[in-house]
Amino acid sequence: MRSLPHAADWWTIPTGPRNTITDITGVAVGHATLTEGTARTGVTALLPHGDDLFRLRPPAGVAVLNGFGKSLGLVQVAELGEIETPVLLTNTFGVHACAEALIRSAIRANPAIGRGDSTVNPLVFECNDGRINDIQAMAVDTALAMSAIENADVEFAQGTIGAGTGMSTFGLAGGIGSASRRVALRGGASFTLGTLVLSNFGKASHLRVFGRKVGGDSSTAPADKGSIIVIFATDAPMESRQLTRLARRAGAGLGRLGSHFGHGSGDIALAFSTANMRDMQAKAETLPATRLAERSMDAFFEATVEATEEAVLNALWNAETIEGYSGRRLKTLRDILPEAGG
Amino acid sequence: MRSLPHAADWWTIPTGPRNTITDITGVAVGHATLTEGTARTGVTALLPHGDDLFRLRPPAGVAVLNGFGKSLGLVQVAELGEIETPVLLTNTFGVHACAEALIRSAIRANPAIGRGDSTVNPLVFECNDGRINDIQAMAVDTALAMSAIENADVEFAQGTIGAGTGMSTFGLAGGIGSASRRVALRGGASFTLGTLVLSNFGKASHLRVFGRKVGGDSSTAPADKGSIIVIFATDAPMESRQLTRLARRAGAGLGRLGSHFGHGSGDIALAFSTANMRDMQAKAETLPATRLAERSMDAFFEATVEATEEAVLNALWNAETIEGYSGRRLKTLRDILPEAGG
Amino acid sequence: MRSLPHAADWWTIPTGPRNTITDITGVAVGHATLTEGTARTGVTALLPHGDDLFRLRPPAGVAVLNGFGKSLGLVQVAELGEIETPVLLTNTFGVHACAEALIRSAIRANPAIGRGDSTVNPLVFECNDGRINDIQAMAVDTALAMSAIENADVEFAQGTIGAGTGMSTFGLAGGIGSASRRVALRGGASFTLGTLVLSNFGKASHLRVFGRKVGGDSSTAPADKGSIIVIFATDAPMESRQLTRLARRAGAGLGRLGSHFGHGSGDIALAFSTANMRDMQAKAETLPATRLAERSMDAFFEATVEATEEAVLNALWNAETIEGYSGRRLKTLRDILPEAGG
Amino acid sequence: MRSLPHAADWWTIPTGPRNTITDITGVAVGHATLTEGTARTGVTALLPHGDDLFRLRPPAGVAVLNGFGKSLGLVQVAELGEIETPVLLTNTFGVHACAEALIRSAIRANPAIGRGDSTVNPLVFECNDGRINDIQAMAVDTALAMSAIENADVEFAQGTIGAGTGMSTFGLAGGIGSASRRVALRGGASFTLGTLVLSNFGKASHLRVFGRKVGGDSSTAPADKGSIIVIFATDAPMESRQLTRLARRAGAGLGRLGSHFGHGSGDIALAFSTANMRDMQAKAETLPATRLAERSMDAFFEATVEATEEAVLNALWNAETIEGYSGRRLKTLRDILPEAGG
Repeated sequence: MRSLPHAADWWTIPTGPRNTITDITGVAVGHATLTEGTARTGVTALLPHGDDLFRLRPPAGVAVLNGFGKSLGLVQVAELGEIETPVLLTNTFGVHACAEALIRSAIRANPAIGRGDSTVNPLVFECNDGRINDIQAMAVDTALAMSAIENADVEFAQGTIGAGTGMSTFGLAGGIGSASRRVALRGGASFTLGTLVLSNFGKASHLRVFGRKVGGDSSTAPADKGSIIVIFATDAPMESRQLTRLARRAGAGLGRLGSHFGHGSGDIALAFSTANMRDMQAKAETLPATRLAERSMDAFFEATVEATEEAVLNALWNAETIEGYSGRRLKTLRDILPEAGG
Repeated sequence: MRSLPHAADWWTIPTGPRNTITDITGVAVGHATLTEGTARTGVTALLPHGDDLFRLRPPAGVAVLNGFGKSLGLVQVAELGEIETPVLLTNTFGVHACAEALIRSAIRANPAIGRGDSTVNPLVFECNDGRINDIQAMAVDTALAMSAIENADVEFAQGTIGAGTGMSTFGLAGGIGSASRRVALRGGASFTLGTLVLSNFGKASHLRVFGRKVGGDSSTAPADKGSIIVIFATDAPMESRQLTRLARRAGAGLGRLGSHFGHGSGDIALAFSTANMRDMQAKAETLPATRLAERSMDAFFEATVEATEEAVLNALWNAETIEGYSGRRLKTLRDILPEAGG
Repeated sequence: MRSLPHAADWWTIPTGPRNTITDITGVAVGHATLTEGTARTGVTALLPHGDDLFRLRPPAGVAVLNGFGKSLGLVQVAELGEIETPVLLTNTFGVHACAEALIRSAIRANPAIGRGDSTVNPLVFECNDGRINDIQAMAVDTALAMSAIENADVEFAQGTIGAGTGMSTFGLAGGIGSASRRVALRGGASFTLGTLVLSNFGKASHLRVFGRKVGGDSSTAPADKGSIIVIFATDAPMESRQLTRLARRAGAGLGRLGSHFGHGSGDIALAFSTANMRDMQAKAETLPATRLAERSMDAFFEATVEATEEAVLNALWNAETIEGYSGRRLKTLRDILPEAGG
Repeated sequence: MRSLPHAADWWTIPTGPRNTITDITGVAVGHATLTEGTARTGVTALLPHGDDLFRLRPPAGVAVLNGFGKSLGLVQVAELGEIETPVLLTNTFGVHACAEALIRSAIRANPAIGRGDSTVNPLVFECNDGRINDIQAMAVDTALAMSAIENADVEFAQGTIGAGTGMSTFGLAGGIGSASRRVALRGGASFTLGTLVLSNFGKASHLRVFGRKVGGDSSTAPADKGSIIVIFATDAPMESRQLTRLARRAGAGLGRLGSHFGHGSGDIALAFSTANMRDMQAKAETLPATRLAERSMDAFFEATVEATEEAVLNALWNAETIEGYSGRRLKTLRDILPEAGG
C-alpha cells in the first residue's frame, strides 16, 4: 500500500501498526474483482471475526447521513444492535447476489436457520459504480461474493480493487480505503479504532486535501450521484447506542474532505465492536458485559473523524487509472497532486 | 371473498365498495402462488397505479414498529418520501429474487437507469413462512415475482394465497387480507383509505376478535417469530411526513387484535398516496401540489385503525387449512370460531 | 386504591405485590395537587431511586408515538440513554416551573453543575388539562413541584390527583394510574415491570374495557386533544436500546383500550431500569454491567402491554367526579360502568 | 459588521445582499444582552415573519447531530413539521424563562390557546455559556426574552452579543454569526438560503480557517462541552421532509471547521421555509402548495455547507474580547489571526 505523504500536523492521533481496519484483532478484509467484458466491479468482504457470525454477534449501530441508497439489513441492525453475517460491499445491483451468498453460507453453517432458529439478516452495502462499470449487466454473482469472503486477510489492497474497482471519488479513481487510530484514554486504557470505506462520492471541484482545495473546474463537474459507505470497527466495549453515536461522526470526516452529503449520494455508516459479542448458544438470561464510560466517547469521536478522512484519501492515493466500459477514463489523485499536498 | 360477520357496532366508519385496498383508484393487487414440492409460498404484488412507477412516483412514508425484519428499500423511502417500483410481498428469503425482478423490469422500461439516470430502489417486504414453507429451498424466483405483477387486478383473493400461502396469524392459517374505509371530512371532502396486510404474527392465545379473546391455550403457544407488513393507500393528498404519521397508526390496530409487537416479529408499515405523484420527466424546479390540512389527519388515523384490524381478520377468515412441508397443519379461524364472534 | 373488578382471563401475567410502579425497589411516587381558584391541576413526581439522580443515573429510553406534545428532556435521553433528574408530570404550561425546580434542586445537591460539571437535563412530561383546569393561569410553580418530590412514597393515590387532577380519559375523569407485572423468565430469573401513566387521551366513544366498547355516543365526542404519558420502570438489566424497544410497546396497550394515537395527542413513553445505574463519580473508563439476553425481551413486551392497559383503567376506576373551572363536569368510569365490565 | 477577509476561492456561491439570514424576506433578528453582576449572557430572537406565528406557521424540520442538549420544542416540530412561535436562543438555564415569555405572548395574541385551541409549542434553543457567564444565577427572565423579540430587525449585530455574549467557539470569544447564499437553479429560478448560528463548540486546537489549522496547543485545550445551534431559513418552497434533509447538512459545514461533533456538545439544526406557510384560520381541508423538485435540493445542500461555515467564522470575527465572571478571559480570532487567513 502506498503511504500518503501528509502535512505533518494535520492529524494528531497515532495510527495502529497497519493503519487499516485490520488493526482491530480478528478483523479481516478480502476482495474479489471482476474486470471482464463490460464489468469493472467487484465485492469486498469485511469479517468482524473468524468464527461463525450467526452464533457470535458483534454489537453494532448504524447512521444514515443521506438515505439515497439501497444497502441491506440496516433496519434490523438498528432494532437489535448487532451484526450476524459478514459485511459485504459491492455495486448497487450486486447487493442481491451478495445477500443470497450470505444467506446460503449462513444456512450451511447453521442448518436450523428458518426452521427452529430465526432467519438471517444479510448485511450488504453498495455504491453506484455505473460511470465506469456496466451496472445493468448485473455481473456480480454469489460465487464472486463467496470468493471475497474466502480472500479475507489482515493484509488487503486499497484503491481500485474489489467493490472499489469502478468507484470514483471527487471525480477521481478510487473506492476502497482504510485507516486506524490508537485511542489512549486518560486513565491508561488504550483501544483501537479502524475505518474501511467504499468511497464513490463528491463533486470534483470540492475535494480538500489537508485543507487545500485541489479539485478541478467546478463548472464541468457532474452532480454527486455517488455514495459513501463508512465502516468502523473498534475493540472498545461500546453498546449499540454508543456505536450509533460513533457512526454518526462519519459526517464530520466527510465534511473536512469537502462533502456536502450530496442529494444523490447514499451516505451510510456502520460501527461495530469486537467486545461483548453475543453468543447465541448461551442459555443465560442475563449476560455480563463491560461498557465504555460515556465521557470516554469523545476521544473516539476525534479518532473517527481522522480515520474517516484518511481512509478516503488512502482510497484516492492507492487507486490506479481506470477506463470505463464506455470509454470514460478516471485520473488518480497522484496524477493531479504529485506532491500529495506536501 | 368471504365476508366476516361482525359485531354490529364494532366498526363505525363505512367501507369502500370492495372493502379492499383496490378501492383507491388505480391500485391493483396480484398473486403468484407456489405449492410444489416442499414449497408453500408465493409473491403478492401491489401496484400503486398502472403506469411506470419509476417515472411517476407516489409520495410515501414508512414506520418500523419492530425492526426484526429484512424488508428492502425502506432507507430510501424514508429519505426521499417516494415509491419508485411496485411493492412486492414474499417470504424472507424470497426478497432478493423479487428485488432482481423489480430491477430488471425497471431497466426494461427505463434503459437509462444506472447510466444517465440514477439506479432504482426495489421495494420488497417479507415475513417468515418457515413453519409451513420450506424456506431454505429458496423457491421464489424472478419469474414468480413477474407473474404476481402481471396478475394484478382490482379483484384479488385473500387468505392463504400469494405471499400469504404459508403464513400464520395467531397460530391460524392466513396471510393476505385487505379492507378499506371512506373518510368523510367535515367540510364535505371525501377520500378513501385502503389496507393490505401480509400477516404472520401473534401468539395463539392472544387473538381478540371484536374484543373477545378467542385464542387457545397460551401454555403451548410458540413465541411470536412472525412479522406483519401493513400497506396503506389513500387518494388523499398527504405529503410524506403525513404518510409516515399514518403508517405509525398500524400499531394501534395491531394492539386491538392482541399484538404486543413481539420481539421476533418484523412489524413494518408503509403508506402511500396516489395524489401529488412526482413526474420524473417534469423539468420544472417547483411543482404545484395540494396538501391535506393537518387537523384532518385525525379522521384518517381512526380509519387506519379500523382498516388494519379488519384486514387481519379478513386474512384469517378467508384462509384455508394448510399442511406444511413438515406435516404441521394450521387450522383456520372458521374452525375455531364458526359463528365469527357474532 | 380501588381495585378494578376484571374479567378473569383478560390478563394472564401476575402483578407485583402493590400492583403499582413502586413494586420496583427504590421507586417512589408523590403528588402535589392544586385546586384553588380556577386551578384544578398539580404535579406528580416519580423518583427512580432515593439517591441523587445527577450522580447515579438509571439507563433509559424513550419512544414518541405521536409527537404533538411539549415534554422536556427527550433529546438528551435519546442520545445518552440515561435519566439524571426525577421525572415530573404536570400540565402543558407547568413544565417550565417544574424544570426550574429540578434545575435548582440539582444545583443545590451538586454545586459544580454548570461550572466544572456539565449542566443538568430536567425531565418533565405533560398533558393538556385545559378542559378542566384554567391552564392559562399558569398556576404550577416551583414550590408545588418540590412538594410533589417531597411527597414521594411507595404508597400513592391514583385517579384525579397530582398531575392527573384535571385530566380526562375517553371523556371521563381520571389521569394518574399505575400497574405492575412479575416477569418470570424460563431459566428461572424473575423481574418486575411497573407502569405509571398520566392519561388524558381518547375519544369518549372509543373506550374498550376488557374488549367491550363502553363509551357513549360518538357524535358528540370532541376530538382527541389530549395526550398520554407512559412511564415504565424495571429492575431487569436492560441497556437503553432495549428500554427504547420496551417503551415503544406502550402503543400496543393503548390500541387495546381504543386509542388511535389521535392527531392532537402527545403520546410519549419513557422506560428506565434500576439495574446498571451509572455512577458519575466513578473514575473507571470501562464499567461492568449485565445485559438481558435479547430473546428474553419478549416476556417483558407482553407484560408492558398488560400493565399499560391496566394502568389506564386504574386511572379511570380511581377517579372522582370533577367540575372544571368553567363548569364542565366529568363523570367517572364507575358512573357509566358500575359493574366494571364484570 | 466586520467583513471577514477570505481566501478568494474558498467559497463559490454568491451571498445575499446583507450576507445574513435576514436576506430572506420577512426574517428579523433581535438581541437582548445582560452583562450586569456575574451575568454575561442574553437572548437572541429570530422571527420567521412579522405576523402572528401561531396563526401563520412556517414549515420546518430539525436534525439532531448530537443530542447532549436541552433545547425545547423539537419533538413537536418533528411530528407536525411546523413552527408556531418565534425562535429564541439563550443559555441552557434560560430556556424556561424564554419559554414562558413565548407562551404568555402567544396567549395574549390568541386568547383561545389552551381553551378552544390547542396549546402552544415554544421553540427555544440553548448552549452552555457557563465558562464566562454565571449560569447558576439564572439571570435570564421573561422581560429579557420579550426585549429580544421587540428588538428584532433586518440589521443585527454578530459576535459577543445577545445569546452569544458569553459563548466561546474553539476556545475563542464569539457566539452569534450569520451568512446567506443565493441559490440559482438551472432552470432560472433563484432562492435565498440564510443561516444564523449560536456557536459555542470546538476544541481550541481543532479550528480550521479556510482549511488552515489556526488553533493553539491541543494539550491545554479543555474538552468540548459546548454546543452549536444552526438555524436555516429559505424562501424556497420545501416541505418539512426536505427541510429536515437541509438541516442535516449543518454537519458537513461543522466538519470543515474542525468539529468532531464532540460528546458534550448539543449540536442541533433547524430549517424553516417562508413559502407555503400554514394559515390556521383557513377552513379548507386541502390546501394548495408548491414543492421544490427533489433534485434541486443539491444546490441548497452546497449552499448550506458554505453558509454554516461562514456564519461560524463571522461569529468569531465579530467577537470582542470578554472577561468571564470568574476572571477567565477569551481572546478573539482577530487576536490570533490578524490577517484572517488572507
